[in-house]
Amino acid sequence: MALRVAGCPLCDEPGGRLVFQSAKLRVIHAAEADFPAFYRVVWADHVAEWSDLAPDDRALCMEAVAVVEQCLRAHLSPAKINLAALGNMVPHLHWHVIARFDWDSRFPSPVWAAAQRPADPQREQAIAQQLLGLERDMVQQLATRSF
Amino acid sequence: MALRVAGCPLCDEPGGRLVFQSAKLRVIHAAEADFPAFYRVVWADHVAEWSDLAPDDRALCMEAVAVVEQCLRAHLSPAKINLAALGNMVPHLHWHVIARFDWDSRFPSPVWAAAQRPADPQREQAIAQQLLGLERDMVQQLATRSF
Repeated sequence: MALRVAGCPLCDEPGGRLVFQSAKLRVIHAAEADFPAFYRVVWADHVAEWSDLAPDDRALCMEAVAVVEQCLRAHLSPAKINLAALGNMVPHLHWHVIARFDWDSRFPSPVWAAAQRPADPQREQAIAQQLLGLERDMVQQLATRSF
Repeated sequence: MALRVAGCPLCDEPGGRLVFQSAKLRVIHAAEADFPAFYRVVWADHVAEWSDLAPDDRALCMEAVAVVEQCLRAHLSPAKINLAALGNMVPHLHWHVIARFDWDSRFPSPVWAAAQRPADPQREQAIAQQLLGLERDMVQQLATRSF
């Protein structure tokens, strides 16, 4: 059983569309406007900081982040991958893994900065159509590891 | 010799006040307004993405990030640690390791979001005065590992 804290949104709910789940972590697709390929690796236990994890678990967590990153790169050829573990609002360890494109509304700023241009729904849709294949590959790769 | 690309600011310059350097990576203190304890782990070779590194180097890189995070936590008791590898502007692998405080100008938003309150120079100064001891500890811990 994962360590849970009542009232934590990442203990109470998946936090997005569930793509992969193991005993220690899950991968979700986040429905974040303007960013069609925004995934999160969420640690099952409610811990606030990455360094709260023992070294083996930190490595395991980052291996999952690496798989997600590599699948985004292989399928979508993004301009850049953005990785972040912030958790100021929801202090339950989760890694943002975001494919960035030079046409997205904030590029080259972080996704949390002000918009620089309108969103491009057509290009977003073209990315969204590739997620099924991408996630199939991602799950296959994650399933071969002992998360 | 590290792989360098002419014109890259992180190939040409340290990118901040140098705290630790090894053959594979360095740790710098970044002079970022409003955030007195903002460090970066910069990979020596010019690679864009974290997953460009071989698995052993990824692990090494994250071990350095973990040491920086743990030192910030131990010495400053921040409200939260923020970790990020973005690189949209400077696509040379670097990890931001930032101590966040509930009184800082953007908390609980990411440091890249709009300010929510004025900066607090007195509290920032109190943090700045602890960096010498923090960095001494950090360097000692980094020096015992084979980076």
